[in-house]
Amino acid sequence: MEFKVNSKELEKLLTKIIPAVPTRTPMPILENFLFDIKDGSLTIHATDLEISLKSAMNIISEENAQLVVPAKLLYDIVRSLGDTQILFEIASNGKLNLKTDSGEYTLSYLDSEDFPDIPEFPSASEENEDINEFQLSGSELKTAFGLTAFAMSKEEMRPAMMGTLIKFTPEGLRFVATDGHRLVNYLKKNIVLEITDQYIIPEKAISVLLKILDEKEVKISLSKTHVSFSLSDIELITRLIGQKYPDYESVIPLENELSLKIKTKELHNAIKRMMLFSPSNSRRVKFSVSDNNLEISAEDLDLGSHAKESIMCEYSGESLDIGFNSAYVNDVLGHLGSEEEIIFKLHSSTKAVIINPREEKENKELMMLLMPVRLNS
Amino acid sequence: MEFKVNSKELEKLLTKIIPAVPTRTPMPILENFLFDIKDGSLTIHATDLEISLKSAMNIISEENAQLVVPAKLLYDIVRSLGDTQILFEIASNGKLNLKTDSGEYTLSYLDSEDFPDIPEFPSASEENEDINEFQLSGSELKTAFGLTAFAMSKEEMRPAMMGTLIKFTPEGLRFVATDGHRLVNYLKKNIVLEITDQYIIPEKAISVLLKILDEKEVKISLSKTHVSFSLSDIELITRLIGQKYPDYESVIPLENELSLKIKTKELHNAIKRMMLFSPSNSRRVKFSVSDNNLEISAEDLDLGSHAKESIMCEYSGESLDIGFNSAYVNDVLGHLGSEEEIIFKLHSSTKAVIINPREEKENKELMMLLMPVRLNS
Repeated sequence: MEFKVNSKELEKLLTKIIPAVPTRTPMPILENFLFDIKDGSLTIHATDLEISLKSAMNIISEENAQLVVPAKLLYDIVRSLGDTQILFEIASNGKLNLKTDSGEYTLSYLDSEDFPDIPEFPSASEENEDINEFQLSGSELKTAFGLTAFAMSKEEMRPAMMGTLIKFTPEGLRFVATDGHRLVNYLKKNIVLEITDQYIIPEKAISVLLKILDEKEVKISLSKTHVSFSLSDIELITRLIGQKYPDYESVIPLENELSLKIKTKELHNAIKRMMLFSPSNSRRVKFSVSDNNLEISAEDLDLGSHAKESIMCEYSGESLDIGFNSAYVNDVLGHLGSEEEIIFKLHSSTKAVIINPREEKENKELMMLLMPVRLNS
Repeated sequence: MEFKVNSKELEKLLTKIIPAVPTRTPMPILENFLFDIKDGSLTIHATDLEISLKSAMNIISEENAQLVVPAKLLYDIVRSLGDTQILFEIASNGKLNLKTDSGEYTLSYLDSEDFPDIPEFPSASEENEDINEFQLSGSELKTAFGLTAFAMSKEEMRPAMMGTLIKFTPEGLRFVATDGHRLVNYLKKNIVLEITDQYIIPEKAISVLLKILDEKEVKISLSKTHVSFSLSDIELITRLIGQKYPDYESVIPLENELSLKIKTKELHNAIKRMMLFSPSNSRRVKFSVSDNNLEISAEDLDLGSHAKESIMCEYSGESLDIGFNSAYVNDVLGHLGSEEEIIFKLHSSTKAVIINPREEKENKELMMLLMPVRLNS
């Protein structure tokens, strides 16, 4: 059987699917695309068994077929062809021929029966599952994941924290990520379902979404075990992390009465310089807060180097010294780069610090939290 | 003692010097700059003991001093400061303080006596050495090294071939590089000294030059052991490779009578596709030449994939099959990208092939050579 596609259209589709193809896997068959040709449509699937991506394009084909095609090789060939028509011929000897005006390229394909089961979203009828659905724009979803994802844990010891929590509340939809050292809590106010369910989206799905999301509307469907993100031309399905998310709310201090207002960019530039002087193990930077002045300093005893800078700020509380991991401060400030000014809410040198944008946005609330580190002196 | 510099001026200078600082070295002191402050001038040196770079800037300083400063840390600090005045204070306790309007940064420095001897260009009077000098524009030198350097050998077994030969001839200055599989021979016609000396420039010096050369004039001084490249604001000195360059001329065939003219870009794009199908060990691609037609093909038996393409060309000789390493063909074509058409001069499937641009340039001659690989069939 055979069908024709335009190389550029196929390239566009493969570019969206290929992020689900694992680069290192103990199951080499996952390094393939699954082609499903049915009733004049070519659907292409890829999966790493945790997430799956699929997308379809119309083709003219009399017959139906399924086949498993080497993902990277096919993608590289299609990308290298320029803008041309490709005739696909599926031979019965396990060979797939691609023909263009000037060349002919032959790959081996595998039988679709060898391809493992792809994570699928359970249909509502199965097991009478509760399924929650909502929509938001791709750019809003990208903002929410973009602001929170950096704070997820990379430590396999606590699998729940290796994902981002999404939680329905009467105020809106919360996105929460933490690794125990820092925490982000982002509230998207205009999404209110009459439920209080919560779900943990794993890191891989989020990093792929951040690549493929555009400004168009996204339909999100949540079951107890899976979530589906339906974009205009592609669907991502992922298993959820089936663990209990830690009680992050108990970590958030409520009575941090000392408030320090500072220019984000000025502090961020200074922190980048302090990172050059903070020791490679503790990465400690010291904040010394006094009347309308923030002094930050770092010292690397091994290299015999140290640095300090003074930055103007608005602060009228008592003087206070507090230490942080400079890399974590840098991460937090990097994600607040669009805010001209931010507010640090402090209590003491041993208590978590809360960082908010100075200006509240309509329909959004953003809170970041940093745990202090012990100062030696 | 102390002196002031503008951060942006110092950054510009350090950016040019830092390529000589080795990133991994058994001698950690080489990871430093040598600062030489003398008579109102700050000269900064760096070396990996094979090459050295130095450049100077004027400063206001009453005293002279030499000190050894951590290169990467200083460079990172200066880059991170924005545009500002820096006051350098050299304290007698081994500390170097940098002060700006808002901050103070302290590094440890070492004594200049611990810094090893820097490769230096011998002065003409010493040992009565023959020194040859000539000038050419930085852009012409960049072109010459850019066209030849890729063909240098990476194999330590044959140290002479790990550099680029420059050779004075009555026709001009030749640049030659080869690794035994391919060879580039570039003649720059308008440089004629009345000598026939030849020199081998090591790879490191060439890769640094390709970074720092601009269009301005370069003065090149050659002794038996060293070469100096004096740019407008920086000098690079390197040891020469003190070995005999192989007799490359005997490899260049003179009677390749079969001539194939082809569009460079069309062939290059096809070769990139063939690289996807050529086996990872031999990387073999087959050229099948016949009347005004070039068929190129590749086959990977392990993957069960193969490909072929036909390209129009001008050829009227006998039919011929010849194999190449596709990566080497790709390298050669990549360096002929500015030529619309090229000419392959062939003799048989076992003899070296010569590749020339179709159009000869004024004052330049370029020849590339590829050794064939055995075809199985």
